[in-house]
Amino acid sequence: MRPSGRAPDQMRAITIEPHFTRHAEGSVLIGFGDTRVLVTASVEERVPPFLRGKGQGWVTAEYGMLPRATHTRGSREAAKGKQSGRTQEIQRLIGRSLRAVTDMKLLGERQITLDCDVIQADGGTRTAAISGAWVALRLAVNTLMAQGKLAADPITQKVAAVSCGIYQGQPVLDLDYDEDSNADADGNFVLLGNGNIAEAQATAEHANYDEEALLRLLRLARIGCTEIFAAQDRATQ
Amino acid sequence: MRPSGRAPDQMRAITIEPHFTRHAEGSVLIGFGDTRVLVTASVEERVPPFLRGKGQGWVTAEYGMLPRATHTRGSREAAKGKQSGRTQEIQRLIGRSLRAVTDMKLLGERQITLDCDVIQADGGTRTAAISGAWVALRLAVNTLMAQGKLAADPITQKVAAVSCGIYQGQPVLDLDYDEDSNADADGNFVLLGNGNIAEAQATAEHANYDEEALLRLLRLARIGCTEIFAAQDRATQ
Amino acid sequence: MRPSGRAPDQMRAITIEPHFTRHAEGSVLIGFGDTRVLVTASVEERVPPFLRGKGQGWVTAEYGMLPRATHTRGSREAAKGKQSGRTQEIQRLIGRSLRAVTDMKLLGERQITLDCDVIQADGGTRTAAISGAWVALRLAVNTLMAQGKLAADPITQKVAAVSCGIYQGQPVLDLDYDEDSNADADGNFVLLGNGNIAEAQATAEHANYDEEALLRLLRLARIGCTEIFAAQDRATQ
Amino acid sequence: MRPSGRAPDQMRAITIEPHFTRHAEGSVLIGFGDTRVLVTASVEERVPPFLRGKGQGWVTAEYGMLPRATHTRGSREAAKGKQSGRTQEIQRLIGRSLRAVTDMKLLGERQITLDCDVIQADGGTRTAAISGAWVALRLAVNTLMAQGKLAADPITQKVAAVSCGIYQGQPVLDLDYDEDSNADADGNFVLLGNGNIAEAQATAEHANYDEEALLRLLRLARIGCTEIFAAQDRATQ
Amino acid sequence: MRPSGRAPDQMRAITIEPHFTRHAEGSVLIGFGDTRVLVTASVEERVPPFLRGKGQGWVTAEYGMLPRATHTRGSREAAKGKQSGRTQEIQRLIGRSLRAVTDMKLLGERQITLDCDVIQADGGTRTAAISGAWVALRLAVNTLMAQGKLAADPITQKVAAVSCGIYQGQPVLDLDYDEDSNADADGNFVLLGNGNIAEAQATAEHANYDEEALLRLLRLARIGCTEIFAAQDRATQ
Amino acid sequence: MRPSGRAPDQMRAITIEPHFTRHAEGSVLIGFGDTRVLVTASVEERVPPFLRGKGQGWVTAEYGMLPRATHTRGSREAAKGKQSGRTQEIQRLIGRSLRAVTDMKLLGERQITLDCDVIQADGGTRTAAISGAWVALRLAVNTLMAQGKLAADPITQKVAAVSCGIYQGQPVLDLDYDEDSNADADGNFVLLGNGNIAEAQATAEHANYDEEALLRLLRLARIGCTEIFAAQDRATQ
Repeated sequence: MRPSGRAPDQMRAITIEPHFTRHAEGSVLIGFGDTRVLVTASVEERVPPFLRGKGQGWVTAEYGMLPRATHTRGSREAAKGKQSGRTQEIQRLIGRSLRAVTDMKLLGERQITLDCDVIQADGGTRTAAISGAWVALRLAVNTLMAQGKLAADPITQKVAAVSCGIYQGQPVLDLDYDEDSNADADGNFVLLGNGNIAEAQATAEHANYDEEALLRLLRLARIGCTEIFAAQDRATQ
Repeated sequence: MRPSGRAPDQMRAITIEPHFTRHAEGSVLIGFGDTRVLVTASVEERVPPFLRGKGQGWVTAEYGMLPRATHTRGSREAAKGKQSGRTQEIQRLIGRSLRAVTDMKLLGERQITLDCDVIQADGGTRTAAISGAWVALRLAVNTLMAQGKLAADPITQKVAAVSCGIYQGQPVLDLDYDEDSNADADGNFVLLGNGNIAEAQATAEHANYDEEALLRLLRLARIGCTEIFAAQDRATQ
Repeated sequence: MRPSGRAPDQMRAITIEPHFTRHAEGSVLIGFGDTRVLVTASVEERVPPFLRGKGQGWVTAEYGMLPRATHTRGSREAAKGKQSGRTQEIQRLIGRSLRAVTDMKLLGERQITLDCDVIQADGGTRTAAISGAWVALRLAVNTLMAQGKLAADPITQKVAAVSCGIYQGQPVLDLDYDEDSNADADGNFVLLGNGNIAEAQATAEHANYDEEALLRLLRLARIGCTEIFAAQDRATQ
Repeated sequence: MRPSGRAPDQMRAITIEPHFTRHAEGSVLIGFGDTRVLVTASVEERVPPFLRGKGQGWVTAEYGMLPRATHTRGSREAAKGKQSGRTQEIQRLIGRSLRAVTDMKLLGERQITLDCDVIQADGGTRTAAISGAWVALRLAVNTLMAQGKLAADPITQKVAAVSCGIYQGQPVLDLDYDEDSNADADGNFVLLGNGNIAEAQATAEHANYDEEALLRLLRLARIGCTEIFAAQDRATQ
Repeated sequence: MRPSGRAPDQMRAITIEPHFTRHAEGSVLIGFGDTRVLVTASVEERVPPFLRGKGQGWVTAEYGMLPRATHTRGSREAAKGKQSGRTQEIQRLIGRSLRAVTDMKLLGERQITLDCDVIQADGGTRTAAISGAWVALRLAVNTLMAQGKLAADPITQKVAAVSCGIYQGQPVLDLDYDEDSNADADGNFVLLGNGNIAEAQATAEHANYDEEALLRLLRLARIGCTEIFAAQDRATQ
Repeated sequence: MRPSGRAPDQMRAITIEPHFTRHAEGSVLIGFGDTRVLVTASVEERVPPFLRGKGQGWVTAEYGMLPRATHTRGSREAAKGKQSGRTQEIQRLIGRSLRAVTDMKLLGERQITLDCDVIQADGGTRTAAISGAWVALRLAVNTLMAQGKLAADPITQKVAAVSCGIYQGQPVLDLDYDEDSNADADGNFVLLGNGNIAEAQATAEHANYDEEALLRLLRLARIGCTEIFAAQDRATQ
């Protein structure tokens, strides 16, 4: 039934290529099927003004989509002179998700910026970005620990994200572009290694949904994130 | 336990003052306690470029916060020259919520813009805005119908929104500013008159949460929205 | 002869509702007939860079018009990314007018910002804003004095403003929108409690005018401001 | 008493060099003493969108100050990415002043843009700009008439402007920078060839002023504009 | 003598990976050593306004650098709201270079946009971008020809670019970052398959240079471009 | 053969009017035929952030074109809110050229900004700007030396620039607008008093060119710059 022939609870192939670029303290190219996102983690020994002198760090994210990552070329945000509402919404979500698993006191007065740039888009770019950002963050923190700059590991647990939606009346996991653009409802779930929820968002697109549907989406998300956690482990060991 | 002395499932006083301004086709001043949002619905006999000639209408929203709606003065977005990510995220949510209850074919080739301006903020501005926007939309559509411009009512049902969160370990309904700024988790739920969900969002702030908590927040939201639906009915009859 | 049936030297009803919002140090909703402007006065314990360390304060103003304050919806300046020339011209006038009655040495190293937001427009928004801003400033200074932060009252006198114009060949006081959009000439006069002039501006629109006409407009302005001063007194006692 | 040694009712030397540049339909370099403004009039065979198809023309103005026209270098507005409130206020004033003497029906469906760029500033740049803009407009209209594009002369009369102010308690004409930066009050008067007023603006700076002072400033302005009218005549004959 | 141990006339390894992404009509990941640039060619069946109805096409380019392509993180141009002067200068150079080898009449009324995004930077990003852009353009035109949309091949010949400079007194080919940041002079040469020059630019950095040096840089550029042409051939056959 | 009747190696008349404005430390109006550029040099006793505390100075440039400097009116960059890519490219070139002849240690911790504003354009505005900027810089440094602020002269030699191109198959010197808009190739050469090259740029426009053509353009540039150097000497003695 799914355009890709996948089972309703089947993720696309997850690929994680750590150390994809050489300058960043952490970097990764993550793929959920044809969706590919390059994430770099940059460590800077300073914090934003509102945190100065408070003895704690900060984790933030920026998101971008290359103009021709998509089926038809989109305009370049740098040329237009502003980031779209969608871009800002996504980068705020990525930042919140990673801050949910970072102990800012242990990080100390430094900032880690996660740049998530979509090289190729086929649905689920924000969830791939969050999942990849955890790997880039993990690699950057490993670097800091190896340099003796951290007394203890500030990463408290894993975080991963996946989209789920109602497609032709059926809850399905990890929507690709064909499904995403025709879904009745879709959601993004950010889950933690301990099974808890960092963020749940589900939006009615062409049809509204009920509580039972919300729960079924959440359960699919658990299946997907379990698989992502395993891929994150393999990439960072 | 709540700073305001409210019970966990108790809404703040809901006040809805329809026809608050005179030029707009629909207008309302809505209050959730000390939060007060002015919403106007403006009808324009044109649609955005991507819809031209398709025989359907559009509903969109803009959101703003007066600089001194808050405890300390914020900078004016018009003077800074851009809308914050938060503003854009909220106005996208308001627009989606109202589109979920509008039949665009029945609306015809016209656009209704819902301007939501926060006069005074004490938590829950986006949910008050959505709830008030439905009233303004209802009034504007009533005007169009009275003018004979619509063959049938394009509003398919009611929509309302409320925030819920985990405050000091306890799920509570309709967070005010004191609660919102200290909540472990908070969420915004956009519910429909038929009991279905248009949008559910729940974010871990200081502590992540589990599936049971998500459900409890949703159930509180149902209590709150039932009360808002009643207030909407009173204001539009 | 006037569309409203008023006599040439008759003001519209002046309404002043002090303490309209609760967070600002001073706030007021002022009405000149159907024109309604919300003014808040915000005290900040810092001054702009050009005044730092000079032992004096500053008073400034910002002005905005809600998109549907007017007959047809205007675009939101925050969304367009810049303030219009008209907006900037008006907020500069408001700031100058209030600075004309403030002793900056007595105010000390703090800034008071007057935010003037037009809720509903029917002509004369800038003059209502100035007249209301004095009330908001008065209330904010009263608060500072009650807190013992000021050794002496920095407000030297009252200030009020009103528009006058030549409508169908006749000088009239306090133009509403119907008159304003058809006036041969119109002007804005900012007068002080001692009878002096802080600012006089008169512009030929459809017909130019002579010195005698300028004097007649000024004399009408004196009549209007006398009435506004009385309303300011009632609102701040 | 005046820093320049001038009598209170004495203008600075007025210099008008027509045809200063060769591409514009009209161009002039005007000087009021050390203040020098280059004004060009550009004719375009189109009107702004709000006037299309109405059988009438438009006159508008833009104003700029070269970064080092002033004693200390100011930042370049093109580099900052926006025009200051002062710039916009001035260019709106120039446009209004020239429209006051143009019959838009006789001009036909074309736009004349007056670009006023300050090469060197010593007070009174906006009044020199208005006075010079009339000459540039006159030259451009002469060109159109010589080309047979106009059936009748759309310029109805002359317009000129000059600043006046209260300096050390004394009303003086045509303030230079030293006077302008220390004046108790200053004003700009835009007068017509028939003796009427197009615009009068007078602002209290360090001291407010009374009706008698306003009249004395206006009378000085008449003296100055008479001299400017004569210079305009010489430059355009 | 060179930090990399290369001979003065030795290029870094050239890697060209065609079809790197799947949506674009042409795409390539090109590497000059550690410099890696992703170039996509997007075909749109429309031309810019200045070319409409003229029966010819257009080729243009945009350039961007991912924030952490470099040793230390740079700010994101989309977030800053404008493209730097350097970015604009580079994308203008890329566009000119590719237009120099395209017959716009044969291309017909369509536009090809070359998006050049630097994934990793180690000197020579603009020359790698030009060299890769030719491959992406070649692939996109091949697609159009296979679709029968072009009567004849609009690409007239190959184009490649390489940087050369004076490093420690010695002319060297294809500067990497270590060399580039310490060169006495450096230049970028855009050469055509027929041996002619599309663009030559050479700038004194720490020391100016003479005509003989300019010629030696140009001769090194010929050596480098010969190698790049061969790599372009291999990638497009 | 040239539209102006000039010989291939003939410059237009070079006019240099020093001290054109009075506030700037150095100022000049330079003309290459009908091209006229006003250049001012402004000294500020501070350096950009990246140089603070390093005991050296900085020279930078800004470039602008008055809207009606050209045949048809261009839009004002300050009104559009951004500088074009062309403007930025030119001002970067001017800054580099002047820095090539300034010893930053001898200049000390101060910045000199060269504002180059095109009053009238007829081709070659950037090369006239560079040639005039040297004069303005020379005058400003003379002022600093006369004030005893400099221990030694930081200007190491002269710099001048001229454009050359291939017009109707023939290399020609100092292109005017008619030639520039139809040239097969054109270039800008920035030469030093000692005969060396600060910058060479040559671009194929309608036809690409070979190494011999590049050398012929460079030799024409030497002829032109020799003449400009002489004019610079006359203007600064």
